[in-house]
Amino acid sequence: MRYELYYWPHIPGRGEFVRLALEAAGAEYVDVGRLPEAEGGGRPGVARMLEAQPGGRTPFAPPLLKAGDLLISQTANILYFLGPRLGLVPEDEASRLWANQLQLTMADLLVEAHDTHHPIAKSLYYEEQKPEAARRAANFLELRLPKFLGYFERLLNSGNAAEPHLVGKALSYPDLSLFHIIEGLRYSFPNAMNRTRPNYPALHTLRDNVAAQTKIAAYLASPRRAPFNDHGLFRHYAELDP
Amino acid sequence: MRYELYYWPHIPGRGEFVRLALEAAGAEYVDVGRLPEAEGGGRPGVARMLEAQPGGRTPFAPPLLKAGDLLISQTANILYFLGPRLGLVPEDEASRLWANQLQLTMADLLVEAHDTHHPIAKSLYYEEQKPEAARRAANFLELRLPKFLGYFERLLNSGNAAEPHLVGKALSYPDLSLFHIIEGLRYSFPNAMNRTRPNYPALHTLRDNVAAQTKIAAYLASPRRAPFNDHGLFRHYAELDP
Repeated sequence: MRYELYYWPHIPGRGEFVRLALEAAGAEYVDVGRLPEAEGGGRPGVARMLEAQPGGRTPFAPPLLKAGDLLISQTANILYFLGPRLGLVPEDEASRLWANQLQLTMADLLVEAHDTHHPIAKSLYYEEQKPEAARRAANFLELRLPKFLGYFERLLNSGNAAEPHLVGKALSYPDLSLFHIIEGLRYSFPNAMNRTRPNYPALHTLRDNVAAQTKIAAYLASPRRAPFNDHGLFRHYAELDP
Repeated sequence: MRYELYYWPHIPGRGEFVRLALEAAGAEYVDVGRLPEAEGGGRPGVARMLEAQPGGRTPFAPPLLKAGDLLISQTANILYFLGPRLGLVPEDEASRLWANQLQLTMADLLVEAHDTHHPIAKSLYYEEQKPEAARRAANFLELRLPKFLGYFERLLNSGNAAEPHLVGKALSYPDLSLFHIIEGLRYSFPNAMNRTRPNYPALHTLRDNVAAQTKIAAYLASPRRAPFNDHGLFRHYAELDP
């Protein structure tokens, strides 16, 4: 199966969670948004997939995955579909539900991380909501982030495994997503993440282990991995990370 | 199968989406949070399920569904599991993915609806974030809500069916969830929802059709249906709905 990923070309964003799964499995895929516009890529190549689809099953927003006749959207839904096909989740129903539950909890964290810099409106610039962002980011770092990271840390420590994993005893797609979230948080909040590092040894070990996986290491060193920047979900504004 | 639902007893909240599916199907279930504390219910009955679970698969937050040995969390995940078991989604993979995608898009809308009254922090009272809430609510009503409602209206109109449905030609769990969202929005923003009603005829027809389903009508008239109130996701503050 040759997959097609549709996501905005200039940010890692939510597309990155899908990309990491495809890369970790060595799957064959085309990152359509990063093709030249003349070859059907770029923003127009992504945007046209949001127009009315035959059969009426039109997606709301990228990322989208085309797999044969299926056009799937919503990050967790795409990963739920891909997981067993890429060998990135155990096949039993309980494990698949558990993986999905973890992925959705990470999606909740993602929204909160995004809203630290956009608490009022996506349609406004950060500069138009700076005082509100300062309040929200302070609350996020004080209460919300420790709640989420503490939860994942406890899960990773409950397995008694030599290497921490979220699902079973092998790498799964929630591990890859958690890796990316740690990377994003380190980019956004380097001071806070450094200060609290001793509280989350298993999380940082997971991050290091994922980064060292052969296929992931090759991907991270390649031009296919887009750097974080100040247009995406994870942004660095020094004043939000005292 | 006798299901157990665990959710905070004093708000409809996210538990309501699960409750509606169980009620529409006439499933046997216990709403544990609404049992007396002496019988293992109430807030303590829910909170104890968030303590470390055997096997390490501890949930992050309610709602939770216990189905035999499975303990499932995250609303969309619970509904993904229940859908085919309750006859509330077609069984083919494409339809199940489509239903899940819709449910997750509604989850995105829910967060934005909640954050109109809590744009800065869940840990603060509304009264501590009123100016920010006014800005966020205005943007929500102007840009975000029409984007979401317009999307669902177009989907309902694309089916050419006598009765609008989101998935196939029969009632499915995303229809039930969309019903509840319309109800919540009408409670929170009665003025805005009345003003824009002509823009969304199919949405309001879906809402009326779901409310008229025999099992749902009986549920809505019963004490099992908790009223909206100003502790939940959907709240009414007149100043946010000019």
